[in-house]
Amino acid sequence: MSSRAALSDGQSVRRGRGRPRHETPSADYLARKDLILQKAAEVFAAKGYEAGTLDDVAAALDMRKAGLYHYVDSKLGLVALLFARAMDAGIERLDLAAQTADPRERLIALIRAFVDEMADHPSLVASFAGRRPVFNDGRDAEFQAKDRRIVAILAQAVEDAVAAGVLPAIDVRYGAMAIIGMVSTVHKWFDPRRDPDPLAIADTFARLLALIPPDTLTRA
Amino acid sequence: MSSRAALSDGQSVRRGRGRPRHETPSADYLARKDLILQKAAEVFAAKGYEAGTLDDVAAALDMRKAGLYHYVDSKLGLVALLFARAMDAGIERLDLAAQTADPRERLIALIRAFVDEMADHPSLVASFAGRRPVFNDGRDAEFQAKDRRIVAILAQAVEDAVAAGVLPAIDVRYGAMAIIGMVSTVHKWFDPRRDPDPLAIADTFARLLALIPPDTLTRA
Repeated sequence: MSSRAALSDGQSVRRGRGRPRHETPSADYLARKDLILQKAAEVFAAKGYEAGTLDDVAAALDMRKAGLYHYVDSKLGLVALLFARAMDAGIERLDLAAQTADPRERLIALIRAFVDEMADHPSLVASFAGRRPVFNDGRDAEFQAKDRRIVAILAQAVEDAVAAGVLPAIDVRYGAMAIIGMVSTVHKWFDPRRDPDPLAIADTFARLLALIPPDTLTRA
Repeated sequence: MSSRAALSDGQSVRRGRGRPRHETPSADYLARKDLILQKAAEVFAAKGYEAGTLDDVAAALDMRKAGLYHYVDSKLGLVALLFARAMDAGIERLDLAAQTADPRERLIALIRAFVDEMADHPSLVASFAGRRPVFNDGRDAEFQAKDRRIVAILAQAVEDAVAAGVLPAIDVRYGAMAIIGMVSTVHKWFDPRRDPDPLAIADTFARLLALIPPDTLTRA
């Protein structure tokens, strides 16, 4: 069975574009939507967000563009879904790292999670880090809330590290933004061939912040 | 007239519109061009690079748009000149700071210069830091060379600081990119009302890197 046929028979009732309202999406529908997002990410990674089109995404899935409209309402809608997923996945990793009780270990875990996420998804996070489109609707506020969530996680970690004497007595917000600046720009210069181990980058950052003691250092 | 202005003007390539080639620009011409760039920066700062037009720039100068073409060949050309000036001004400040002999003081001076430059010209550097347009001509390589110049200044400072024991024995490139990441993202969150003193931000960064000893700290 071609993926086109598989992707086009997921819904029984449709009015115009998109999944009908008030209908709980089936597991099948959600799985297909996941596949579409995954392929779209690959297309945009290869072509760039601006150059990549819904036609390209449809072609990569071997389906008709019209079929895509059962899952996304527009290219901008697709891009918004990709950003939201990338940010949510990143926040989930940060939340997990933030559960580390020890303030020093927590900061190291947060830096590692952030850098690793950047290295894993350079194209998605490239957008997330400063190049997010303006949607001119409620989605902008949603993304700003996610930004604030990330800042809050880092700020809490910095505050606890300062209180524990792990970091010097710095302004907490400036400290959080310094760390976010470090880790959120990795995707701009990271090169998988030159930098095969993202954790080496994270550990350099941790060493620079004196989170890892000097006597454990190895010169890269 | 600065040699920089004269040089960049002399290197411009024009066909059709604009001042003829091979003609040394007069002081008057260069002064007017400076004024145009200054007004254009204000227009783009207010409207954004994408929304701002040459018509807006002409209106802000109370001149006809046709008159602008004696000074710039296109909006993209104008944007390129603004980026080049912003980067050259930044590099000039970094070069000056890089003359500090003491490795610790030099890093502090570089961080202060960088942050202060970001705070002074948020709209110009916002573009410079990751949102520079692609020109698809020799200008892209020129800007990449300026990027590399900034990285080289920071990498040399990090290398000397590591050698002097001012920084731990970290990978020099990663360390330089960490510091550039910190300082080059200040414009994204810097708010002149909330953050009236850019040097307080720079000093927080320096403290975070243990460049300023803890006993001189004041909690902001």
